[in-house]
Amino acid sequence: MNHKNLKELAIQLHRQYKGKIEVVSKVEINSEADLSLVYTPGVGDVCKEIEKNPEEINHLTSRGNMVAVVTDGTAVLGLGDIGPGAAMPVMEGKCMLFKTFADIDAFPICLDTKNVDEIVAVVKALQPTFAGINLEDISAPRCFEIEERLKRDLNIPVFHDDQHGTAIVVLAGLLNGVKVVGKQMEKVEIVINGAGAAGISIAKLLLRAGFVNITLVSLEGVVHKSEDWLNPNQQNIAKVTNKKNIKGTLQDVIIDADVFIGVSGPAALKPELVKKMAKDPIVFAMANPIPEIYPEEALAAGAKVVGTGRSDYPNQINNLLAFPGIFRGAMDSGATDITVEMKIAAAYAIANMIPEKELSSSFVIPNALNKEVPKVVARAVADSVLKQGQVSIKTS
Amino acid sequence: MNHKNLKELAIQLHRQYKGKIEVVSKVEINSEADLSLVYTPGVGDVCKEIEKNPEEINHLTSRGNMVAVVTDGTAVLGLGDIGPGAAMPVMEGKCMLFKTFADIDAFPICLDTKNVDEIVAVVKALQPTFAGINLEDISAPRCFEIEERLKRDLNIPVFHDDQHGTAIVVLAGLLNGVKVVGKQMEKVEIVINGAGAAGISIAKLLLRAGFVNITLVSLEGVVHKSEDWLNPNQQNIAKVTNKKNIKGTLQDVIIDADVFIGVSGPAALKPELVKKMAKDPIVFAMANPIPEIYPEEALAAGAKVVGTGRSDYPNQINNLLAFPGIFRGAMDSGATDITVEMKIAAAYAIANMIPEKELSSSFVIPNALNKEVPKVVARAVADSVLKQGQVSIKTS
Repeated sequence: MNHKNLKELAIQLHRQYKGKIEVVSKVEINSEADLSLVYTPGVGDVCKEIEKNPEEINHLTSRGNMVAVVTDGTAVLGLGDIGPGAAMPVMEGKCMLFKTFADIDAFPICLDTKNVDEIVAVVKALQPTFAGINLEDISAPRCFEIEERLKRDLNIPVFHDDQHGTAIVVLAGLLNGVKVVGKQMEKVEIVINGAGAAGISIAKLLLRAGFVNITLVSLEGVVHKSEDWLNPNQQNIAKVTNKKNIKGTLQDVIIDADVFIGVSGPAALKPELVKKMAKDPIVFAMANPIPEIYPEEALAAGAKVVGTGRSDYPNQINNLLAFPGIFRGAMDSGATDITVEMKIAAAYAIANMIPEKELSSSFVIPNALNKEVPKVVARAVADSVLKQGQVSIKTS
Repeated sequence: MNHKNLKELAIQLHRQYKGKIEVVSKVEINSEADLSLVYTPGVGDVCKEIEKNPEEINHLTSRGNMVAVVTDGTAVLGLGDIGPGAAMPVMEGKCMLFKTFADIDAFPICLDTKNVDEIVAVVKALQPTFAGINLEDISAPRCFEIEERLKRDLNIPVFHDDQHGTAIVVLAGLLNGVKVVGKQMEKVEIVINGAGAAGISIAKLLLRAGFVNITLVSLEGVVHKSEDWLNPNQQNIAKVTNKKNIKGTLQDVIIDADVFIGVSGPAALKPELVKKMAKDPIVFAMANPIPEIYPEEALAAGAKVVGTGRSDYPNQINNLLAFPGIFRGAMDSGATDITVEMKIAAAYAIANMIPEKELSSSFVIPNALNKEVPKVVARAVADSVLKQGQVSIKTS
């Protein structure tokens, strides 16, 4: 299917169905008796029950299984700031994925404001309606502050998928990747190309999971604590990365690196640079649809394990492996937050979906459409919540 | 079914189904090809199409058929200010009714704030998500200001059902009621007992529809322009009602009245007062579940046409006859507002559902569960929009 066909088919499908989600009743109303149970007068007693015991809202209404997919439309796919209305097809798609892969009811909340205070206020006001908040396609650095404030102020799980979903799946792929190439996580040197929301979030999670040597590179150059162009989030991550104290560009830090993680743009990694990496390098080139380097080029240049964001190559790094199970597990266990422990538990669960003997350089990540994955992730996340007693370190 | 049984059954049903609505996908995702059409990469072209042509959001996403049922939980049924969480079962019930009777996708928005500015700000921010706003169970006088500001600031239909839904169905019943008793709308004297949101809204709509003589009575007494206890909304309605210039109580204004409309409380109309009304009086006693007067008592005291809010007596005045068709018609016709003309058109459509020869004192209002009603109302409302060219008088 070429791009023109895909475009036409996608628009046609959306027009034919008038969007992709609908709100349906779980119970039919065919008689006065039905009406008196689901609506007045019977519903009054259900209201009083919740008034008496507020947690009952999660058992007597749909709220306990309801997640908001919240965006302001400022960083939609690779399209940028296209606005909250134009973002709706992505949000509806996300809601479908929640339902299809985790039986979670998810509803798109596209907000006509880019103001951080206003976004936070709206989402806080919606807490009686939702049991979880998935932040989506909100541009950096606003996404950091929004998530941080909501995590602090709400007692339901809040998760910015663009940051953490990606980080979890990268961690999962890397856990298996280092096994395949026979290296140890404490020793591998990792270069993350891209120091925005996703890059920084990946670095944080890899550090917490036990990786040690990480260096980030942004369009301005290598993230080094003495650079004056760092934003506050880059300043923070600079304190715990770039152990070799290198200033310069990707060319300088790629030498002898074991892992390249690209959350940058098309063709950002030339084959010549892959050749400068350590033996059996791992390359996750996740720019979409055009990766930092195409798998065939990377392999030809000596890469051992190659992953991309694309479904037409092996090792697809796809958030879909993480967020449905993360939310399912968090909601089933009554978690009030999504912690770093839960994220790491999710990553190990994803990685361990592939039995040791099936692990190979072209199979370090399970298939994104494997519906067993969210179930296993949900169990691992719920176990993690139980273990922590959900007090836990709040992290963004 | 006694009350205890109803209570237990209602709670059991809500617990068993974990609420009454769910968000489902219209399309299945079973393959990479499916995913590439409903989500990335195909969805990107749908986003761009909406970015280019913003109205396409109503054709390419579910937004065009999506209504928010918005509450702050301050005036829920007869239960009062029970909070936004405890209000959820009613809002979900309302969403079911939208879907069942008008195939409208409706979603509950229960807000954790009572602040008028905040409620208005949240709903305005949600405009990219919804094509209509149904305000529900918000206490007076805040409900007036919230509706007024949202009608002014949003270009989608906004409708406070507790005010206007009731008014429309009362008007419908009254149009048929005066026919049955052989009186003329310009001549009948109407007493509305209750001068809150519903009472004032009924008075306004009846005046616009051609009724002339209306007097409101509140707990403080007859609404008269010189009384010092009137709130601003009562002051306004006092200017155009109470033509006989009466000060006093219900006892004073009920004498020779042709119509009693009760939006007050249990047993507010004694049989002795019905006996003082004009010949063949019409009594709509809508307090729920205990009406201002029970139908058998009213009829024994001489009332000719009696309606209540209850489904176990003839002539049930039920908002369900109005709101699904109102929204269906408004949304189908692309209306940007719900105007008084549309409300009057809806009332006539409801009234005309009963053929002349079937009209009787015990059948002035169609059955609330008659699914033909919303269809006919929707057509009438859409015709009205067409006729107005939707410029129209904005009214609350």
